Amino acid sequence: MKGKLKKFYNLVEALETLPSIGKKSAGRLAFHMVLHSPMDALKLAHAIEDAVSSIHRCTQCGGLSEDELCYICSDELRDRSSLCLVESARDIYVIEESGEYHGLYFVFESLNERILANLKEMIKNNGVQEIIFAFTPSMQSDATMLYIEDQLQEFHLHFTKIAQGVPTGVHLENVDMLSLSKAISERVKI
Amino acid sequence: MKGKLKKFYNLVEALETLPSIGKKSAGRLAFHMVLHSPMDALKLAHAIEDAVSSIHRCTQCGGLSEDELCYICSDELRDRSSLCLVESARDIYVIEESGEYHGLYFVFESLNERILANLKEMIKNNGVQEIIFAFTPSMQSDATMLYIEDQLQEFHLHFTKIAQGVPTGVHLENVDMLSLSKAISERVKI
Repeated sequence: MKGKLKKFYNLVEALETLPSIGKKSAGRLAFHMVLHSPMDALKLAHAIEDAVSSIHRCTQCGGLSEDELCYICSDELRDRSSLCLVESARDIYVIEESGEYHGLYFVFESLNERILANLKEMIKNNGVQEIIFAFTPSMQSDATMLYIEDQLQEFHLHFTKIAQGVPTGVHLENVDMLSLSKAISERVKI
Repeated sequence: MKGKLKKFYNLVEALETLPSIGKKSAGRLAFHMVLHSPMDALKLAHAIEDAVSSIHRCTQCGGLSEDELCYICSDELRDRSSLCLVESARDIYVIEESGEYHGLYFVFESLNERILANLKEMIKNNGVQEIIFAFTPSMQSDATMLYIEDQLQEFHLHFTKIAQGVPTGVHLENVDMLSLSKAISERVKI
C-alpha cells in the first residue's frame, strides 16, 4: 500500500519526526492537509521554509533572531544591568509575555566551556550587575546555579533566582512538597 | 514582540491551523523546527508541497490517489462484487491494514445527491452484489444505512455491516452498554 501513495506516506513520515506527533496523529494531520485544507497546508510549507531560512540564534544571547543581534539585545531601552539566565530560548518569550522583566537574557542550555565564555563576554560587554536565574526548580538546577555563581566570582555580581512557591489557582494538596516547603520557609510579608 | 520575529510567529500561526494543535504545541513545534531540526523541517515543507500538489481524490471511490483512479479501484485482482462504504477516506487505509478485506471501497462522507449518484454509478460499473457498511456504530449511522439501503433498492443488493461487539483486550465493565447488548444478542457459535 505504501508504495502506491508514496508522496502521501512521505508526508506522514515527515510529520512523525516532529516531537509529540505519533503515527496516528501524523496520519490524521496528513489527511487533513491533503483533503480538507490544501491551501493552509501550502501556507504552512512556505512558513516553515521562511522561518527556517531566516531565523537563527542571536550571537549574543542565544535567543531567536532574524539579524545578528536579537530585538532584545539591540534594544537601547532595556536595562543592561540585569541578565536573566534561561534554560531554553522558548523561556525568553514566556517571560516576555509576563511583561514583568525589562533586562537582557542569556540562554544557558547546557553546561560547557563555550557557553560559559559567551556568558562572561556578555556580562563584560553590558556591564551586568545582577544575574537572575529563571531555571525550572529542581535539585539539578540548584547545582547548576551554584556552579555558575562560582565561575562568575570575578565579576562581583548580585545573584538571584525566581521565587519558588504555590502557583495561582492550584490547591495546596496538589502542590509538590518541595514547593510547599519553600513557600512556607520563604513566606512574604503582606 | 510579534512584530520583531514576524517569520517565526507566522510559522506558529500556520501550525495553529492544524487540528489538535493549540497555541502551546504550535510554539513548541516551531521552536523545535527552527532551533533543533531545520533540515527535517525543510523536508517536511517539501513533503507537504509534494503531497498537496499530487494527491487528490480518486474519481470513482473518493479515496486518495495520485492518478485518476486509485490503486484499489484500478487493481484488477480486487473482488469487484463487494463494495465497502466508509465515512472517510482515512478508514479505507485502516481497513486495508487489517488485510481482511479484498473488495472495493466507496467514501460516503455525507448524505447528498451527488455522492448518491456516484455510488450508483460505481455499483453499476463494477457489477457490485454486496454492500458492506463500515461506519462508526451509532444511532445516526443506523439511520444513514437504512436510507442508503432504501435508495439502492433497484440494484437488488445484499447489505451487511461490520460486526459490533466487545473489542479485544477491553474489560466488559469498560464497554458501553449498547455494544455489550449487541455482543450478547448477536453472539456467535464457537
